[in-house]
Amino acid sequence: MARVLNFSAGPAVMPEVVLRQAQEEMLDWRGTGACVAELSHRGAPFMALASEVEADVRNLLAVPESHAVLFLAGGATTLQALLPLNIAKQGQRADYLVTGHWAKVAMKQAAPAADVHVVASGEAGQFRSIPPRSEWQRSPDAAYFHVTANETIHGVELPDDIDAGTSAPLIADFSSNIASRPSDLSRYAMVYAGAQKNLGPSGITLAIIRKDLLERRGQPRADILTWASHAAQGSMLNTPPTWNWYLLGLCVRWMIEQGGTAEFARRNGEKSALVYAAIDDSEGFYRNDVVTSARSRMNIPFVLHDAALDAAFLAESQAAGLIGLKGHKAIGGMRASLYNAMPVDGVRVLVDFMHDFRKRHG
Amino acid sequence: MARVLNFSAGPAVMPEVVLRQAQEEMLDWRGTGACVAELSHRGAPFMALASEVEADVRNLLAVPESHAVLFLAGGATTLQALLPLNIAKQGQRADYLVTGHWAKVAMKQAAPAADVHVVASGEAGQFRSIPPRSEWQRSPDAAYFHVTANETIHGVELPDDIDAGTSAPLIADFSSNIASRPSDLSRYAMVYAGAQKNLGPSGITLAIIRKDLLERRGQPRADILTWASHAAQGSMLNTPPTWNWYLLGLCVRWMIEQGGTAEFARRNGEKSALVYAAIDDSEGFYRNDVVTSARSRMNIPFVLHDAALDAAFLAESQAAGLIGLKGHKAIGGMRASLYNAMPVDGVRVLVDFMHDFRKRHG
Repeated sequence: MARVLNFSAGPAVMPEVVLRQAQEEMLDWRGTGACVAELSHRGAPFMALASEVEADVRNLLAVPESHAVLFLAGGATTLQALLPLNIAKQGQRADYLVTGHWAKVAMKQAAPAADVHVVASGEAGQFRSIPPRSEWQRSPDAAYFHVTANETIHGVELPDDIDAGTSAPLIADFSSNIASRPSDLSRYAMVYAGAQKNLGPSGITLAIIRKDLLERRGQPRADILTWASHAAQGSMLNTPPTWNWYLLGLCVRWMIEQGGTAEFARRNGEKSALVYAAIDDSEGFYRNDVVTSARSRMNIPFVLHDAALDAAFLAESQAAGLIGLKGHKAIGGMRASLYNAMPVDGVRVLVDFMHDFRKRHG
Repeated sequence: MARVLNFSAGPAVMPEVVLRQAQEEMLDWRGTGACVAELSHRGAPFMALASEVEADVRNLLAVPESHAVLFLAGGATTLQALLPLNIAKQGQRADYLVTGHWAKVAMKQAAPAADVHVVASGEAGQFRSIPPRSEWQRSPDAAYFHVTANETIHGVELPDDIDAGTSAPLIADFSSNIASRPSDLSRYAMVYAGAQKNLGPSGITLAIIRKDLLERRGQPRADILTWASHAAQGSMLNTPPTWNWYLLGLCVRWMIEQGGTAEFARRNGEKSALVYAAIDDSEGFYRNDVVTSARSRMNIPFVLHDAALDAAFLAESQAAGLIGLKGHKAIGGMRASLYNAMPVDGVRVLVDFMHDFRKRHG
């Protein structure tokens, strides 16, 4: 069938031109006579690719020389478990800003290896806003301060210039908004992101870590769980997910060619404004309760005024070629995820559908 | 260019028919209008695929009902680090049979979380044989007994019916010979395998674990590092490597259609016999020093009688469309890996090349 418009929160839509290239190269990549996934990660063709992808990631995200770029397996959740093992002392305090479901997951994974501390939480307000800076209770001796740059379920997003102070290294989960706008990465000791939202397929996780952090002793752990060891081996301490690395590279190259993070900031601003307008101008037919200043440009949860219409909304949107709009089970309703690979025109189709559905069912 | 014959130790050759199917389905998988890698792992199409792949794995490998089948990220090395955390008490003895490089890696990864003990080692004999059962020093109180079913670097392989006794659960690294012959998995408490040799692409790891092992308390660790949690969530505790899972599924289905493990045992016997004959009948031009009873059917390392010929062998074989023959840097020389997706006819081409090269350079 024809390609659908995919609003899934992740794994998510990828650029069609990237998929077409992967399709063409499936049996013979770069004249090797093999699929990239069949080649040794230590052979010259893949080693060249790995270098190119790192250079492109550094270019796209303006990664400072002070930071290492790692390509890891296991997803962001695994990195959250390894974070205290790598950079905190046993039982050391670790600060968490709790802005939604994923911040809680990050803290839960760290809890067995750190004295996790909630700096502030939006939970009492059902995560509809970011706790203001004035209410944060930072620990003076924290190993690090962890924030979640964007919450895919609750639909809140931190401003990029969030003032985290300087008392502890700032670590950010960028999984769902990496490359969605220019970011000053020199302000972060570490950012990390599962690739399956803005960077390509699941199965590979990008970690950008200030090199001095890799010198911390951390806690007893295996070599394979040690980021410094991965860094020393160019992310080839063991066999990496090579096809995922390749496809991530194609997506990153595409983003550069499209104009980079400044252009995606423009597009993502336009796309999210279209959807929020369709919600806010619906006279209560659709509703999103996140305060305006905290609204995510990536994931827009919304409810219909009558939940009895949910099934019809999902069935009719699917019939119209719009998929992935069902909200996360934790909060129900609908959700539109508008990652970089979703074109503005795709969002116009969604917004037209929302208007039309409202007319028919309003 | 034309498809090469790929003798790489992994990532490795995949069946061409599998790659062609993946190519065809890249932009529209099963009528979804999307690439499988774009779809939510929690949506009905991918959930159906996951169930089918598990059923096919159980069929191909004759997995007993007593065992859970997990699809994990991070590679076999990560599982080796998580093994004592999941099934040993802090500081508990864990037994390792050391048959080569990869057994040593397994032990190294476990060492921070267990009192690792060498049951026997082939290192003094340069890993050219398996230490005989009579020399094994098993620990009476070991949490488990770990063996490496096949050593890709040293080219030694355990017999499938190795007598491990019953004093501790038997854990086997099957990374490089899984599905290469029928195995009685009821004899193993756990087997695991990175997919990138016999099962498809890198980036996904199969673990087959007897369910009672998942009830062990293990050691303090994060939920995401806990196999019981992955089992409880159908290997979707976090976003799994979906494209890798899909491609593994295509490879497994292909192996079933080809006749299953009995047929691959026949083919692998034939292929490895061809290469060992080419070596043994070369009047010393080629040499493999592994004792006959321990020779691997999967990975055949060999040296040329004059190392000065190595460069010519590699250049000429590559020109003839044979790639991945360079030996591992740890022992040098050459290596031919003959995984399930390498056809008998491909091995005949290799053997013909070896004869021809010897004639020209002998």
